[in-house]
Amino acid sequence: MHKLFFSEFRTVEWRDGIVAMVDQNLLPWEFRIVEFRDYREVAKAIKNMTVRGAPAIGATAALGLALAAYHSKATTIEELMEELRRAYEILKSTRPTAVNLFWALDRIMQVAHRTRGGVNEVKKAVVEEALRILEEDIKVNKKLGEIGSELINDGDTILTHCNAGALATVGYGTALGIVRAAVEQGKRVRVIATETRPKLQGARLTVFELIKDGIEVTLITDNMVGYCMYKGMIDKVIVGADRVLADGHVINKIGTYTIAVLASRHEVPFYVAAPTSSFDLSLTIDQVVIEERDPREVTHIRGVPITIEGVKVFNPAFDITPPELVTAIVTEKAIIKPPYDKNIPKVVRP
Amino acid sequence: MHKLFFSEFRTVEWRDGIVAMVDQNLLPWEFRIVEFRDYREVAKAIKNMTVRGAPAIGATAALGLALAAYHSKATTIEELMEELRRAYEILKSTRPTAVNLFWALDRIMQVAHRTRGGVNEVKKAVVEEALRILEEDIKVNKKLGEIGSELINDGDTILTHCNAGALATVGYGTALGIVRAAVEQGKRVRVIATETRPKLQGARLTVFELIKDGIEVTLITDNMVGYCMYKGMIDKVIVGADRVLADGHVINKIGTYTIAVLASRHEVPFYVAAPTSSFDLSLTIDQVVIEERDPREVTHIRGVPITIEGVKVFNPAFDITPPELVTAIVTEKAIIKPPYDKNIPKVVRP
Repeated sequence: MHKLFFSEFRTVEWRDGIVAMVDQNLLPWEFRIVEFRDYREVAKAIKNMTVRGAPAIGATAALGLALAAYHSKATTIEELMEELRRAYEILKSTRPTAVNLFWALDRIMQVAHRTRGGVNEVKKAVVEEALRILEEDIKVNKKLGEIGSELINDGDTILTHCNAGALATVGYGTALGIVRAAVEQGKRVRVIATETRPKLQGARLTVFELIKDGIEVTLITDNMVGYCMYKGMIDKVIVGADRVLADGHVINKIGTYTIAVLASRHEVPFYVAAPTSSFDLSLTIDQVVIEERDPREVTHIRGVPITIEGVKVFNPAFDITPPELVTAIVTEKAIIKPPYDKNIPKVVRP
Repeated sequence: MHKLFFSEFRTVEWRDGIVAMVDQNLLPWEFRIVEFRDYREVAKAIKNMTVRGAPAIGATAALGLALAAYHSKATTIEELMEELRRAYEILKSTRPTAVNLFWALDRIMQVAHRTRGGVNEVKKAVVEEALRILEEDIKVNKKLGEIGSELINDGDTILTHCNAGALATVGYGTALGIVRAAVEQGKRVRVIATETRPKLQGARLTVFELIKDGIEVTLITDNMVGYCMYKGMIDKVIVGADRVLADGHVINKIGTYTIAVLASRHEVPFYVAAPTSSFDLSLTIDQVVIEERDPREVTHIRGVPITIEGVKVFNPAFDITPPELVTAIVTEKAIIKPPYDKNIPKVVRP
């Protein structure tokens, strides 16, 4: 069997009162583990994209709450809950789009509220729930990968966008988890990775992961996808998701919608890999907030300017792909096909 | 009237036996004029994109032949013609896609063959024909801009890709020539410019030109076009062309096809600005050569690596937009509408 480095790798870990993670802003040039004792530092790490990717953001935020509980000096339940609420609000306000963030934080808070006993019991329950979220994430991704791998044929060339890999999750990955599972089954798979401007997650992270795992990868700029499809170079598209709505709208990294439109024109299957924790059945499409980030992400690359100082920039971090462009959504429970408004609730909250 | 810096600017000039041009690889950070006395240096400047843009490449190659003639020490017509043929071959082999290159070189060689008299008469005729190509380019672009400006409404937001501006021509520009003409008529026009990876002509050149001319411009990454259209931010697309075939296929900077597909989905008019010198009525679509350039253009930005050393890269410089996605083609003679196979030959070679 193909030995994969990223089968065992963990993007973020708990080390007795410390949250440790690889600084993804430095990859692939430097592999530096950073450690945090304060949940406010964890919030900052989510905000500045030291850690990114919807599932990884959720797990990291959960560990942030675990830090708040673990290091709390509260002597009463009321004090502890007040501290957790403060940490919850700060962690929640880091990034608006990935629903896993809210899902993980709410899950921990529910456990805190539910737990009977004193301060120590609640602290312990919060840390344990956070660790459970981490362990589940790996299991969920491996299951999702296994289920999704049936969509992949031997010899396929798969286009992916941004990084929905091990580094976007606690481990293994979602879109790249499907690729890994197919490779582990002995299928020959080639990947075409978009560089994914402005933050270059494709060029920096996806290429890094795949080369490290010995999977063949070709890097292109985002604007080459159309020509690659025109030339018949792509068999399937697989991307991750920051949020999937009940009707099948997919919110994901900027550029995803463009790829979906091209895939539709060229009749290339367009698959979304999303654990059920990335689904938001409560929100409608007009309520979705698309994060706009610092213009400097566009005007500078690794600190080097690429345009004139002071130029006006539009920098949305995500876009919205409508359900009619999505061939199927792969979850850890099943492959969901249209009609999504009927099939998503059945699978996600049965 | 709005005063435009780039109404008078010349990208490339003839100065008595010297070809002078602004080094576009250094823009917008440094405005350096480089001078060449040897046509082989001119060929190198075309190849390494010191000068780029289909009309500018054509004019510069013409000046390359003028240099060869001007500095020739030939004493017989045969010697001179042999030197010109050598220069022609070297200049012709610089870049395979922009048809203006072949158009301009062939036009000069025809004049050289046709001219009666001795060595001096032929030399003089070659230089004069090259200068005529330069002067015509400006006139053609101003006429094209004027004709195309009728497509622009007051208040329009126009998306453009790469740089089809003054810097892509001898002066004034094609796609940006239409924008300039509309602005000169007092129409309020906003431009959204794609950065245009890998060489960033949008971020470096289009943004530079428009800010210099006081025209409002917003910079986006290439993968944001879909979301901008989804949000209804774009009224029209105008791009240039490196080659337009008799049936309306448009070969232009990589990423153009993707934008055309998105424009079609969103019912945004997609206009191509192309002087008749950019049309190639002899070639069919399966004969088109798409230039693939150095992987380093993708893996490095201003010398800084953006990915892992040695990663496999696909770097096509152009793509192909089929006629059904093109709303109209603006030339200096008329606005050409479908059916292109009928209307293009009527306008281009009447």
